[in-house]
Amino acid sequence: MILCDIGNTSVDLFSEGKCTKFSAESFDPATLHDDVYYVSVNVSLNKHLREHTNWHDLRELIDWGKYYPTMGIDRIMVCEAVEDGVIVDAGSAITVDVMRGGVYQGGFISLGLRAAQEAYVRVSPALDMSFNFEVDLAKMAKNTPDALTVGFMAPLIEKIERLGKPLYITGGDARLISRFFSEAIVDEELIFKGMTKLIEKGVKC
Amino acid sequence: MILCDIGNTSVDLFSEGKCTKFSAESFDPATLHDDVYYVSVNVSLNKHLREHTNWHDLRELIDWGKYYPTMGIDRIMVCEAVEDGVIVDAGSAITVDVMRGGVYQGGFISLGLRAAQEAYVRVSPALDMSFNFEVDLAKMAKNTPDALTVGFMAPLIEKIERLGKPLYITGGDARLISRFFSEAIVDEELIFKGMTKLIEKGVKC
Repeated sequence: MILCDIGNTSVDLFSEGKCTKFSAESFDPATLHDDVYYVSVNVSLNKHLREHTNWHDLRELIDWGKYYPTMGIDRIMVCEAVEDGVIVDAGSAITVDVMRGGVYQGGFISLGLRAAQEAYVRVSPALDMSFNFEVDLAKMAKNTPDALTVGFMAPLIEKIERLGKPLYITGGDARLISRFFSEAIVDEELIFKGMTKLIEKGVKC
Repeated sequence: MILCDIGNTSVDLFSEGKCTKFSAESFDPATLHDDVYYVSVNVSLNKHLREHTNWHDLRELIDWGKYYPTMGIDRIMVCEAVEDGVIVDAGSAITVDVMRGGVYQGGFISLGLRAAQEAYVRVSPALDMSFNFEVDLAKMAKNTPDALTVGFMAPLIEKIERLGKPLYITGGDARLISRFFSEAIVDEELIFKGMTKLIEKGVKC
C-alpha cells in the first residue's frame, strides 16, 4: 500500500516508512501499480487520478460532519492523526487546529513564512529583509529584521502556546519554527499517520 | 505653519486643526507659500522639496539615538507624540511601538490588513475571502473567512493587549481594528501631534 499527498507543486509518496517527493508537473500516476490511497488539492492531477482504479481518494472516507466543507483535505488529515492536541502545519500557509478527545475544536490559518516575507516586501522595499530566526521573541525589536520577525512570529507563537499541549508540528517549515516553542513534537509524517488511521477506520466500518 | 506627512501614494496636509489629503503623484510643493514642516518617505518628491526654502524636513530634528537608523520616519513621529503607552499605526503595515517615560522601548512590524488579505490569496485562491470583522477572536474558527480573520487578527490583537496601556491607535485602519481592543484611544492626528511636539522641542533647543 502506498500513501500519497498531492499538492499544487509536489507529490509526496509514503511507502514502507519512507517518503519520496516528486514534481507535480511531471508526475505520472500510471507508473504506480500498487494500491495508492491519496489526498489531493491539485485540480489538474485529480482528473487523471480518477482514470486509475488502483488510486483511491481518501476524501470519500472523511466524516465531513466533524470538520467544515471548505477545510483543506491536508488539514483534515493531520487532525485525523491526533486524538488530543494542537496541530501546526507550517507550509505555504501555517494552519493551526485543535483536537480534544478526537473532536475537532476549530482552528485558524496564518500565512506561511515565505508568504509573510514576500508580503512585507510588497508593502515596502525597505522591508525586504530575511527573518532573523535567532531573535528573542520576548523582546521588542530595535532593528528592521528583528521588527519583522517579532511582528510575524511572536504573536503567532504566543497564541499557539496558549492553546495548550501536546503540540504537534509538521510541514516544510516544522523544524524552523519548532525552535520557538518551549515543547513541541516535530512529526513530518503526521499527514501519513492521519491517512493510515482513516484507512483503518474506513476498513473497520 | 503647515504640517505635512508625505507617503508614497498620498500627501496629508494639517493646518489649523484640519487635515487635507492630496495625491502624491500630482502634488506640487510650490503651491504652498507658508512654512511647511514635513516628514516624507517619498524619494521622488524629496528631491523637489529641497528646492523650496519654506519646506523644512523634520528628519533633522530627530534624536536618532533614541530610535534606530532604519526606523520609518512616520513611526518615529507617532512615538514622539506619546510619553507613555503602546502605539499602533494601522496602515499598509501595522507598526506597534512602546514608549515608557519618553524612552523608546522597541516595537515590531506586522502586515497591514490589505497586505495580509492579498498575501492569503497568493497562497491559494481558496483563501480569497474577506476578513470577517464581526468574528469572535477568542474562538477557534470553523469556516474559511473566520479562520483567516482569527489567524491574522487574534495573535496580533492579543499580543498588543499584553504590551500594556494606554493604547493609541492611528492610521487608515485605526477604527476598523480598534473594535477588537477592550480599551483604545483612536487618534487619527497622532503623527501631527508628534510633529508639533518635535518642532516645539527643536525651537526650545
